[in-house]
Amino acid sequence: MYKKNFGLILFFIMATLLFPILASAEPKILYATQRGVDTLWVLIAAFLVFFMQAGFGMVEAGFIRAKNTCNILTKNFMDFCIASLGFFMFGYAIMFGIGNNFIGLTGWFLNGAKSGANIPLYAFWLFQAAFCGAAASIVAGGMAERMKFPAYIIYSFAISVLIYPLVGHWIWGGGWLAKLNFADFAGSTVVHVVGGFAALIGTIILGPRIGKYNPDGSVNAIEGHSIPLASLGVFILWFGWFGFNPGSVLGVSNGDLIARVAINTNLSAAMGGITAMLFVWKLFGKPDLSMAMNGALAGLVAITAPCAFVDPWAAIVIGGIGGIVVVLGVMLLDKLNIDDPVGAVPVHGFNGIWGTLSIGLFGRASLGLANNGLFYGGGLKQLGIQLLGVTVVAIFILVSMGLVFKCIDKLIGLRVSREEELRGLDIGEHGMESYAGFQIFTTQ
Amino acid sequence: MYKKNFGLILFFIMATLLFPILASAEPKILYATQRGVDTLWVLIAAFLVFFMQAGFGMVEAGFIRAKNTCNILTKNFMDFCIASLGFFMFGYAIMFGIGNNFIGLTGWFLNGAKSGANIPLYAFWLFQAAFCGAAASIVAGGMAERMKFPAYIIYSFAISVLIYPLVGHWIWGGGWLAKLNFADFAGSTVVHVVGGFAALIGTIILGPRIGKYNPDGSVNAIEGHSIPLASLGVFILWFGWFGFNPGSVLGVSNGDLIARVAINTNLSAAMGGITAMLFVWKLFGKPDLSMAMNGALAGLVAITAPCAFVDPWAAIVIGGIGGIVVVLGVMLLDKLNIDDPVGAVPVHGFNGIWGTLSIGLFGRASLGLANNGLFYGGGLKQLGIQLLGVTVVAIFILVSMGLVFKCIDKLIGLRVSREEELRGLDIGEHGMESYAGFQIFTTQ
Amino acid sequence: MYKKNFGLILFFIMATLLFPILASAEPKILYATQRGVDTLWVLIAAFLVFFMQAGFGMVEAGFIRAKNTCNILTKNFMDFCIASLGFFMFGYAIMFGIGNNFIGLTGWFLNGAKSGANIPLYAFWLFQAAFCGAAASIVAGGMAERMKFPAYIIYSFAISVLIYPLVGHWIWGGGWLAKLNFADFAGSTVVHVVGGFAALIGTIILGPRIGKYNPDGSVNAIEGHSIPLASLGVFILWFGWFGFNPGSVLGVSNGDLIARVAINTNLSAAMGGITAMLFVWKLFGKPDLSMAMNGALAGLVAITAPCAFVDPWAAIVIGGIGGIVVVLGVMLLDKLNIDDPVGAVPVHGFNGIWGTLSIGLFGRASLGLANNGLFYGGGLKQLGIQLLGVTVVAIFILVSMGLVFKCIDKLIGLRVSREEELRGLDIGEHGMESYAGFQIFTTQ
Repeated sequence: MYKKNFGLILFFIMATLLFPILASAEPKILYATQRGVDTLWVLIAAFLVFFMQAGFGMVEAGFIRAKNTCNILTKNFMDFCIASLGFFMFGYAIMFGIGNNFIGLTGWFLNGAKSGANIPLYAFWLFQAAFCGAAASIVAGGMAERMKFPAYIIYSFAISVLIYPLVGHWIWGGGWLAKLNFADFAGSTVVHVVGGFAALIGTIILGPRIGKYNPDGSVNAIEGHSIPLASLGVFILWFGWFGFNPGSVLGVSNGDLIARVAINTNLSAAMGGITAMLFVWKLFGKPDLSMAMNGALAGLVAITAPCAFVDPWAAIVIGGIGGIVVVLGVMLLDKLNIDDPVGAVPVHGFNGIWGTLSIGLFGRASLGLANNGLFYGGGLKQLGIQLLGVTVVAIFILVSMGLVFKCIDKLIGLRVSREEELRGLDIGEHGMESYAGFQIFTTQ
Repeated sequence: MYKKNFGLILFFIMATLLFPILASAEPKILYATQRGVDTLWVLIAAFLVFFMQAGFGMVEAGFIRAKNTCNILTKNFMDFCIASLGFFMFGYAIMFGIGNNFIGLTGWFLNGAKSGANIPLYAFWLFQAAFCGAAASIVAGGMAERMKFPAYIIYSFAISVLIYPLVGHWIWGGGWLAKLNFADFAGSTVVHVVGGFAALIGTIILGPRIGKYNPDGSVNAIEGHSIPLASLGVFILWFGWFGFNPGSVLGVSNGDLIARVAINTNLSAAMGGITAMLFVWKLFGKPDLSMAMNGALAGLVAITAPCAFVDPWAAIVIGGIGGIVVVLGVMLLDKLNIDDPVGAVPVHGFNGIWGTLSIGLFGRASLGLANNGLFYGGGLKQLGIQLLGVTVVAIFILVSMGLVFKCIDKLIGLRVSREEELRGLDIGEHGMESYAGFQIFTTQ
Repeated sequence: MYKKNFGLILFFIMATLLFPILASAEPKILYATQRGVDTLWVLIAAFLVFFMQAGFGMVEAGFIRAKNTCNILTKNFMDFCIASLGFFMFGYAIMFGIGNNFIGLTGWFLNGAKSGANIPLYAFWLFQAAFCGAAASIVAGGMAERMKFPAYIIYSFAISVLIYPLVGHWIWGGGWLAKLNFADFAGSTVVHVVGGFAALIGTIILGPRIGKYNPDGSVNAIEGHSIPLASLGVFILWFGWFGFNPGSVLGVSNGDLIARVAINTNLSAAMGGITAMLFVWKLFGKPDLSMAMNGALAGLVAITAPCAFVDPWAAIVIGGIGGIVVVLGVMLLDKLNIDDPVGAVPVHGFNGIWGTLSIGLFGRASLGLANNGLFYGGGLKQLGIQLLGVTVVAIFILVSMGLVFKCIDKLIGLRVSREEELRGLDIGEHGMESYAGFQIFTTQ
């Protein structure tokens, strides 16, 4: 009997030995690795998106005059600080908290908040907070060279704690647009339409800079003071976008998806730069670097929504059209005498719309698994949903941010005095010079 | 019999097949992945910390006058080169070698050296070497615009091969402070108190720049020549700090710890920027960008020691106080007529102390597993240990670096001639101009 | 019978339960993690190499005059856009497609293309495309301040779609040099000799800038307009090189190899900076920052080929000699009245050769497993192969790129008019100023 059952007994001994290893120990190690690696990737992506703040700062500074440089850099610097704090206190709760179709209402100060992905809450928060900071920063450029600093501080608090998180809740926080299957992989609408249209209504309310438009509506070019700064900023933004889009995969288990997002991001930017340069070269006779760089940024903005759902050839087409859109957009704004010193509206607003819509035109069902587990396959129905979503968001931003800016205007005033604007906001708002010792003409 | 034992035989065959897979093959693959990923993370963090060198360079250059810009950039560039070489030859052995409570004595030229974490020695070394370079670079700013270049070369060799590694051995290399359970997660004391207090004694020995203080002790502001450079530098430093602090986890298996360190780093920096700006705004009537940026750096320095041991709300408090400390520190130094052109002492020295002490006030035992496997839970006893450690280090640096600077002064002279200082060190020390072709006033 | 065989039956049940877990489920998870992590690393490395584009831009801009800054930044910006598109359409197929010893002929537009490593094709492509962009960018510096913009556009298309991929196929795509066991781990030959010698033949065909050499052959220094920009650029390049070299391991399973590559890269750069500074200090009496920075770049270029095959002490020697080579190279070119405004030829061309050869002198067989699975152990035979390979590549580039430049010259002209060169290419080619508002002298 003993002998007969020896196999049986040994088996149970072995099984007892084997099972814990199989069923518990190793999967645990595996899980730790997977979670650690996913966390790592999202954090690295968050760092890259944070670094875009430097990119925005350098682009915006380079494209405006030296006398207002310190002012825009301060705005840019402070809006990230404020976004960090505001998104910690209220923004995250509104965006990712449990609530209804329109607003999240749990997780204030991250208390009891849940992570939106299979990574630690704090990592997910940092990634999302960097996005919030980006949306806030876009506006500084459009309203540059004439907006009061205290007004900007209030604005950036408002967009970080309320406006941006609301739209984010609708699309990424399980709100009504998410339920409609609206697709926005990395934020063409959530970040760029929000930032771009806030800049649009802001610059309309502020009015153009002194001397930008003549009484007959014709345009005086106001040149940026440092093309190297702007160029550096564009490279930093492009670099940071490799965190923005591929990071939105929120994990590394699907390496193929990250890779597709990355190649699409790069190809769209490259083609946007090429078409914008060629288009402006044809129109005005010279290959203008500012426009080429804005073309690349346009390509980046446009591919942000569809990057996970399209093939590389489609990314090239989307970016290429983005480069055209930005040139036409700049011309349109000038025609309307809307003064957007750095092109924030055409780059982020118009191309945010274009990128959002492009999913309906180029999305491939077999490719696109989005964060919410739904497939976005393009087609007329998807195009309709995209159009609805982006239109509502754009209108919501125009109205809500219009209200914010009007309130600030009543409260403390939105625009600096004529004297301060002529002398420069660096001295007026901050008592500093950006380039102490340099001989700089300010006849413009 | 054959039939009876068929199960037994088959079992042994299967077990023979199964066991190697279970017990060896897969864990090996797992181990390789884990080690590879840990290595990857520490290396990426090392790259980010290396990039901080550019941040230091741009901040220091931006905050001084154009005529000394090339000089400080050369110092900044060379001190990393020298730190790399010196830390390879001697520094690592003194810091992480086997020895006694005060000094490590094995692993010269990395021969027979051991890695301080479960990653390859070479990866661990690179991470640590980048820290060493950071400590060395901090000093350049405090002693800017008047220190001889050859003197700086000798100084940076001395701090890299001996002074920094000694303190590092005490705290991170198993020395007497480690044994006392002194807590410094990522180097508020090891890097920033060392760098900041070396800058303090250096600038005292050098004396103030010509024209900085009037005979009655009143202060003449000497403005930085490029706020955009400084702003870019601060963003690069903040970006690099995401390697400095989260990288100090030295692996990815604890993704939650990395995430907490990252969010704390960001929130402390943001709040430091906000409080410094508000405080200086209230004191002097204008929101000064230089001070806001130094406030963010102060927040980063302060959170460096406690980042792993505190909750996000505490990180906000620590950073917020850091922003106040830096403003008061700048005012104190001016009162004492100690000329620190870029604020290196308040940012790194004073906030290094504050951050080190803050563990005693805000540390939570349930959070804090440090590199050495000990928990740091705050409390009066921990506060006492922190106070002891940071005081001894500060005094040691003042004395040892004081000796180093005095020796260099005797040997080859520490300060350039009056004529050279007035004309600028770029021409005097390097025969170069930083901005050839630009019209720059040097009446200051 | 039932009882007797109970063990047997149970075993089969258990085995049926166990096997899928062992043989399929877990290894699959493992595989996903490994592949995801490898993809992640190569993508992060690709992002870093992309960012080098900003580094090239800032170095090249900083080392030339303000009046041509916008022009070189446009070239630098557009060549990456063009390289992205060209390498997508044709370049990758020629470099990594199946074909013969000299050219690949499959995978046009990535259709049916295979990845060159165990990561997704799109990730491998992005990494390789960034390399292609780097090779293209090197040339802009050598031909700066006098080359027509449209000519540059055509050139960058030619090098991206044909010349660079051809050499790449020979060495990394399984071509004749790969079969000869020619060793170039990360591209001292593939990228830097290609870029450097294209710059050499280009600058010879263009001729020197107006005013650079006197009729008697003596040299007039033409100073760079912004040392801070150049310094920032060098730091960005060094930072990006941590993607260039360690990323070429193409996966993380061998963490020790990545770590060795990283430490070697850093030590070689540091020593190159030190020896170049000391050498130029001894020769001309002043420690010149431009030369020290070029020395570090020389060290980076030189270690690129051998980084995986040598010990850290050898990396120090290789970088140290690189720093000497670059100083001698600059002097040699001036002696020959070959005008290379930024030192592209000595840094990339001469040190590319030196680094390639150094494998024969310092390679250690026990260390070096290359991408193609071969060991490179140094020795006279390997040295001979290295010499053959790099010589053939250098000659091929001189001839083929010479033809390209000559064709462009015939077609649309290579050099701007004397008037435009004197006034600056920013106005002439782009109708823009780099520093609007600044007072800048252009008497040079």
